[in-house]
Amino acid sequence: MNRRKFFKNGSILTLGTTLLHPFSSIANTIPYKEGTRNKKAKNIIIIVSDGMSIGTLNMTDLYLSRKTGKCSNWLQLYKENKVNRALMDMASASSIVTDSAAASASWGGGVRTNNGSLNVSENGEEYMPLWQKFKQVGKKAGCVTTVPITHATPAGFCINSKSRNAQEEIAEKYLEQKFDLMMGGGDNYFSPEKREDKKDMYQAFASQGYEVVKTRAEMFSASNGKPILGVFDADGLPYSMDRQNNKELLQKVPTLAEMTQKAINAMSNHPNGFVLQVEAGKVDWAAHGNDIAALIYDQVAHDEAIQVAMDFAEQDGETLVIITTDHGNANPGIIYGNEANVNFDSIQEYKHTNEWILNGIGKETSISQIKERVYYANNFALTDEESHQLLRYYTDLQTEDGLYNPRHLPFQDLAKMQQQHNSVGWISMQHSADYVELAMYGPGSSLLKPFVKNTDLHYLMLEAAEI
Amino acid sequence: MNRRKFFKNGSILTLGTTLLHPFSSIANTIPYKEGTRNKKAKNIIIIVSDGMSIGTLNMTDLYLSRKTGKCSNWLQLYKENKVNRALMDMASASSIVTDSAAASASWGGGVRTNNGSLNVSENGEEYMPLWQKFKQVGKKAGCVTTVPITHATPAGFCINSKSRNAQEEIAEKYLEQKFDLMMGGGDNYFSPEKREDKKDMYQAFASQGYEVVKTRAEMFSASNGKPILGVFDADGLPYSMDRQNNKELLQKVPTLAEMTQKAINAMSNHPNGFVLQVEAGKVDWAAHGNDIAALIYDQVAHDEAIQVAMDFAEQDGETLVIITTDHGNANPGIIYGNEANVNFDSIQEYKHTNEWILNGIGKETSISQIKERVYYANNFALTDEESHQLLRYYTDLQTEDGLYNPRHLPFQDLAKMQQQHNSVGWISMQHSADYVELAMYGPGSSLLKPFVKNTDLHYLMLEAAEI
Repeated sequence: MNRRKFFKNGSILTLGTTLLHPFSSIANTIPYKEGTRNKKAKNIIIIVSDGMSIGTLNMTDLYLSRKTGKCSNWLQLYKENKVNRALMDMASASSIVTDSAAASASWGGGVRTNNGSLNVSENGEEYMPLWQKFKQVGKKAGCVTTVPITHATPAGFCINSKSRNAQEEIAEKYLEQKFDLMMGGGDNYFSPEKREDKKDMYQAFASQGYEVVKTRAEMFSASNGKPILGVFDADGLPYSMDRQNNKELLQKVPTLAEMTQKAINAMSNHPNGFVLQVEAGKVDWAAHGNDIAALIYDQVAHDEAIQVAMDFAEQDGETLVIITTDHGNANPGIIYGNEANVNFDSIQEYKHTNEWILNGIGKETSISQIKERVYYANNFALTDEESHQLLRYYTDLQTEDGLYNPRHLPFQDLAKMQQQHNSVGWISMQHSADYVELAMYGPGSSLLKPFVKNTDLHYLMLEAAEI
Repeated sequence: MNRRKFFKNGSILTLGTTLLHPFSSIANTIPYKEGTRNKKAKNIIIIVSDGMSIGTLNMTDLYLSRKTGKCSNWLQLYKENKVNRALMDMASASSIVTDSAAASASWGGGVRTNNGSLNVSENGEEYMPLWQKFKQVGKKAGCVTTVPITHATPAGFCINSKSRNAQEEIAEKYLEQKFDLMMGGGDNYFSPEKREDKKDMYQAFASQGYEVVKTRAEMFSASNGKPILGVFDADGLPYSMDRQNNKELLQKVPTLAEMTQKAINAMSNHPNGFVLQVEAGKVDWAAHGNDIAALIYDQVAHDEAIQVAMDFAEQDGETLVIITTDHGNANPGIIYGNEANVNFDSIQEYKHTNEWILNGIGKETSISQIKERVYYANNFALTDEESHQLLRYYTDLQTEDGLYNPRHLPFQDLAKMQQQHNSVGWISMQHSADYVELAMYGPGSSLLKPFVKNTDLHYLMLEAAEI
């Protein structure tokens, strides 16, 4: 799957468009769903865009439609009336605004717990995670993500942990449970050089029969019979846009769609079926950084993974595909104005993320170098004053806080400068309480009501698989 | 309908709750929709919350759930699986971010036109508005709104006008077409003292057989046999929250639900049926002002109108009810943080809107008076510095622009001060490009696909009514 080609031609989006005008085609209702209504789901693929406000879905769809003439795969499923949809209330036990740990655990364990914990209640009660339940009935189970594989969203389906931050321990718990395919970032939590306890988790996995892969090529050539551990970067994987513009990263790191395809290939010829969680984890990180190019391109990466899953599920006929997010983040949107179209389309010219821009600036960078860098990445000119404003974060110990901003760089200031040129606004750099979009295809999808709680999804998956 | 009582007891929300846990009840699908699937819609009621970002719907639902223990009527329809839902792309001919004129005209005329115009294309072509089409086949047609009845959303269903701003002329066009019931604000465009041309439009309507009503009591006692013009304020009606705390306004101005009930009573015993547009127009104005109390309480007013329409439609069995918005605005959301719950719940203590707060401050107001006023309205204390910051807009000719902010008052500053206390954020003070939520009940609702363009809705209404 060649992303570069995709962005030029939209070649993956080949479902065919059902144009909605003239009106006549609207009347063509529910052609696909009926066939699978009463079947049992042998396999489940749940594809999560972490921290996707509805505006992120909308903007990405608009972005693709205006750039390639074809909409997102997600909304194409709506146009073709292939899925059931719902709004989902993602509140945790401790807050109307969830974090990713409590969100994933609400699906994984079927109980709302406090933000920060994974399938463990405040008084220490543990809830068996869903992927363990499926393992117990003989299915294969795995996760792929663009953040560390030990991060909250995969962990919430797999293990119990009082704290999401215990990522070294989470790596060990994965091995105890013998999950069949775990791939993403997170070398920091597997490598003996980087772990605090100096354990070599790669060795530990290998000695239990895992094939351990660390590059895209190794992933492709891993045998589909054995369990697989894939770790492709120290922490999160690079943003899709930055990967795309870096030959080394293109070679080393697989896309989310490629990991999804590998996971399906590796687990789908099992007689009892498989369950797979796919997470576009860096959509959330991009929203935390108000980083529009990172956000849209990683949402597109999620969208490509949807297509891989759908291609399999439509052939297979026994696979429930669930497409959703765990919470809103920053509620981005395109703001009204005379230049809204031109401004929004200017993002098509962006070459790099804001993370790339800001990480390439230092104390010694000159004002003209900052302007050049932003011009190269975004195709517009900062003013001298704006460039000085950014530089102060490097020279004057001015800082900005942020969940995924360890160097305290001026992500918010840069996003505000960009807003005048791209018309995209953000409410904050944090999660929001919005009810989230949820769509389902295949056997079990007719169980979905138009409004559900996060914990309902746990039981729906069990019911769909008749467990 | 006693709103005060409603806010205390949630007494209107008596649909009964279908609790979603344990899981078993999810499987109870589509119990209501089937019965009406193939009927013809004799009547149509479309209920628009103008400028409702999905966050506005979510927050209002959360607000009601946490305050009264019962959710919004809108989302209750989802929980009971009574409606079909879609996302709707509201772009206009001139922009991915529509204004209310182009939005309403896309539904009203079935064609995307430029922002600002009503059923007239750039080169002057005119498209017959939907309510005229329905009049032609013998149905009654009317509109009720909380903004001037000559405003963009009702006008887009009723008339052709190159400019939405020609509100005096729009009042005359309504009379030419003899719509059966038009109620809202807008004395400025009917009164001989206020119109530029000094025409007495009240007299003109009366001489054509209209009953003209200017108070809530007059509205209730107007006969249901004759056409009705109701104008209850100079421009927009007061915000629901401010009305609720003002005896004079409570007596003079009807609620949106009351206007809706009156419209149904006045038009529903017609043998050929009726079409009615209901608009919560000030939800949009509140979003333009980042005015959270105004926003939530006017969204609740919209929600009460939904209940009135549903009560009628469920009895009647021949009425298509459409519930939607014309575009997002300001994309508000509740932001993550340790105090998110307590902060959001503090809005339950608010007594007045930001419009009320800011309109009561003047050059001569002291810092302590400003603090007192905000404390009275919002139950938290501004700092001296914040109070000075607000006062500068009155004393130093500092100004803020805004569509519904003629006095250039500091709405944005006040919202930012409130954010620390209520955890609600906004991306801007303008419309957004988000695809919008759309729900339908009754005959014709099965025509809806999960993703539609705004113009599809025009044809869907005609098809549902078999015209």
